[in-house]
Amino acid sequence: MAAVYDRVALIGLGLIAGSMSLAMREAGLAGEIVGYARSPETRDTAREIGLVDHVTDSIAEAVSGADLVVLAVPVGAMGVVAEQIAPHLMPGATLTDVGSVKQAVIEAVLPHVPQDVHFIPGHPLAGTEHSGPRSGFAGLFRQRWWLLTPPEGTDPGAVERLAGLIRAMGANVEQMDAPHHDLVLAVTSHTPHLIAYTMVGVADHIKRITESEVVKYSAAGFRDFTRIAASDPTMWRDVFLQNKEAVLDILGRFTEELFVLQRAIRMGDGAHLHEYFTRTRAIRRGIIEAGQDTSAPDFGRGQGAPAGPRKDG
Amino acid sequence: MAAVYDRVALIGLGLIAGSMSLAMREAGLAGEIVGYARSPETRDTAREIGLVDHVTDSIAEAVSGADLVVLAVPVGAMGVVAEQIAPHLMPGATLTDVGSVKQAVIEAVLPHVPQDVHFIPGHPLAGTEHSGPRSGFAGLFRQRWWLLTPPEGTDPGAVERLAGLIRAMGANVEQMDAPHHDLVLAVTSHTPHLIAYTMVGVADHIKRITESEVVKYSAAGFRDFTRIAASDPTMWRDVFLQNKEAVLDILGRFTEELFVLQRAIRMGDGAHLHEYFTRTRAIRRGIIEAGQDTSAPDFGRGQGAPAGPRKDG
Repeated sequence: MAAVYDRVALIGLGLIAGSMSLAMREAGLAGEIVGYARSPETRDTAREIGLVDHVTDSIAEAVSGADLVVLAVPVGAMGVVAEQIAPHLMPGATLTDVGSVKQAVIEAVLPHVPQDVHFIPGHPLAGTEHSGPRSGFAGLFRQRWWLLTPPEGTDPGAVERLAGLIRAMGANVEQMDAPHHDLVLAVTSHTPHLIAYTMVGVADHIKRITESEVVKYSAAGFRDFTRIAASDPTMWRDVFLQNKEAVLDILGRFTEELFVLQRAIRMGDGAHLHEYFTRTRAIRRGIIEAGQDTSAPDFGRGQGAPAGPRKDG
Repeated sequence: MAAVYDRVALIGLGLIAGSMSLAMREAGLAGEIVGYARSPETRDTAREIGLVDHVTDSIAEAVSGADLVVLAVPVGAMGVVAEQIAPHLMPGATLTDVGSVKQAVIEAVLPHVPQDVHFIPGHPLAGTEHSGPRSGFAGLFRQRWWLLTPPEGTDPGAVERLAGLIRAMGANVEQMDAPHHDLVLAVTSHTPHLIAYTMVGVADHIKRITESEVVKYSAAGFRDFTRIAASDPTMWRDVFLQNKEAVLDILGRFTEELFVLQRAIRMGDGAHLHEYFTRTRAIRRGIIEAGQDTSAPDFGRGQGAPAGPRKDG
C-alpha cells in the first residue's frame, strides 16, 4: 500500500501510539514515523525496541515537517502539548488526537491550532488494561471503531485522508459531534470503569478482614472488574475530570436504578429481578450481533469451552 | 483412575451438572452417571447429546441406588428438590449441591436429609455466561476453586471422598463455614453481578435515545459488563434473594464508596482519583499472582496482543 502520509509524528509513546506505529509500519502507511515522549525512560524504551523510526528528544523536532501529528497523551495534557507544538506545525498538516473525551480536548487544543492546520479530533475505541511503550501491537485496532469529531467547517479532504489511514490500520471510521461522543462514551466506557474501580476498592477493604480470600476466590464477575480497574490511573483520572458532566449524569441514573434493584432484593421481589435480568441478557445479544464481541464463553478462559447456545437462545 | 462413586445422580442438567458429567466421564470417576431435569426439553436434549449415561423421567428413579447425589438446580429450588428425593436416598449416600449461596441452601435442605445420609454442601467457583445442557465442557473446573461447607459433625471420610472426586475433575478444594462463604461470595461475585446488571440496564434506557449506538460503540469495560449480565436470570434471581443480607451489606459499602468518587469528580479532585485508581491496580496484580487469571491483555481479544509489562510494573 502507498504511504498515506510522508511523515507521522506521534506525541506520547504509550499503548495507542505504539500500536499505531506498528500498524502503520506493517501496512506501509507512513513514509517515516517519528516519536516523542516526555519521559526519558519511555523514549529510551521506544528506541531500544525500535517502536518508531526515530525518537526525538525535542517535541518541536518531532512535529517539524510532519504532515500528520497525533496527540496520544492523557486528555488533561492535550492543551499544554498543543501549545508547545503549535509554532512548529507545518502549514497544511493534519493534527489529530486519540483522547477518550472530545469536547474538553477541543476546548483545550483548538485555540492553539494555526489557521492553516487541519484539526480532526479522534478516538479509537480500542485498548487493553496494559499501558506504556511495550504494550502496543499492530492488531489493536482491527475491527474496532475509530470515532472522528471534526469541528464544523473542517476540510472534507483532510478528514477523508485521515479516515483512509485509520481504515488501512483495520478500524472502522464513523463521524459524530463531540457532545454526542462524550455522552455515548460516558455510558459505554467511562461510567462502567468508575463502577469497576469502586467495586474493586470495596473488595480491598473487605480483604483486610478475610485475609486475601477475596483475591483467592475471585469469581468471573470480579475478575472482569479487576481487569478494568487495572487500566492506566492517569488516563482515567483525566477522563473523569474532563467528561464530568456526562459521567455525573449517567452515575445519577445508575444509582437510581441500583436502588430499585436493591429494594427488590430487600423486599424479596423475585419477579422484578428476573424480568430485569432477562432484559439485560438481550443487550448482550445485540453486542454480539454488532460484531463487538464473540459468543465464546469467556468465563471459561480458554479451557476448551464450546460457544454453545444459551438456555434462552 | 478407579471410580470414586458407583452411581452418581445429577439433579438438574445445566452448565455445572453437564460439565461434571463430562469431567467424570473423561477421568473415569463414576461407575454410572444418571441424570434428571424437571423440563422434558432439557431431558430430551441431554439424551440426544448423550450428556449422561442414562436420563430418567422420574427424580426418585434417578437418586435410587446412587452413592452420590448432586443437586444442580437454582438455589431457590433446592428445598423442594431435597424434599422430593429424601425418601429415595440410599443409606450411606452422600448428598451435595453446587449452589452459589450456602446458608440458605443448608437451611432449606438439611431438614429433609435422612440421618444416614452425608450432606456436604458445595460451590464450584466456575461457570460461563452460557447455561443449559449444551453448555457444559469437561475442563470447566480445571484450576478453579470448589468450596465445601460441611456442617459440624459431618463424617470426615465422606468429605474426603467427595473432595477426591472434585480434585480428580481438576479443581482445588477448600473448606470454610457457610456464613463466611456467603460473605466472600457477596464481595467477589454476587454484588459485581448486580452492578453489571444495573449498568447494562441504564445503557438500555440511553440506547433508546441514541439509536443503538450504545451497543455499536460498546468499549471494553461495557462489553465485560454485558457478558456478566448475560448470565442465567433464574440462577441470579435466586442468589440475590437467598444471600440477601451479605449482598445488601456490600451494596451499602459500594454506594458509600461510589459517592466519595462521584464527589471527587464533581469537585475536580484529581489527586484522590489517581490515588484510588493506583490502589485498585495493585489488587489486579494480586489476582494474577493467585493464579485466578493471566496477565494476557484480554481487551485485545486474541488480536495477537503481547502480555507485556505494565507502565507501573
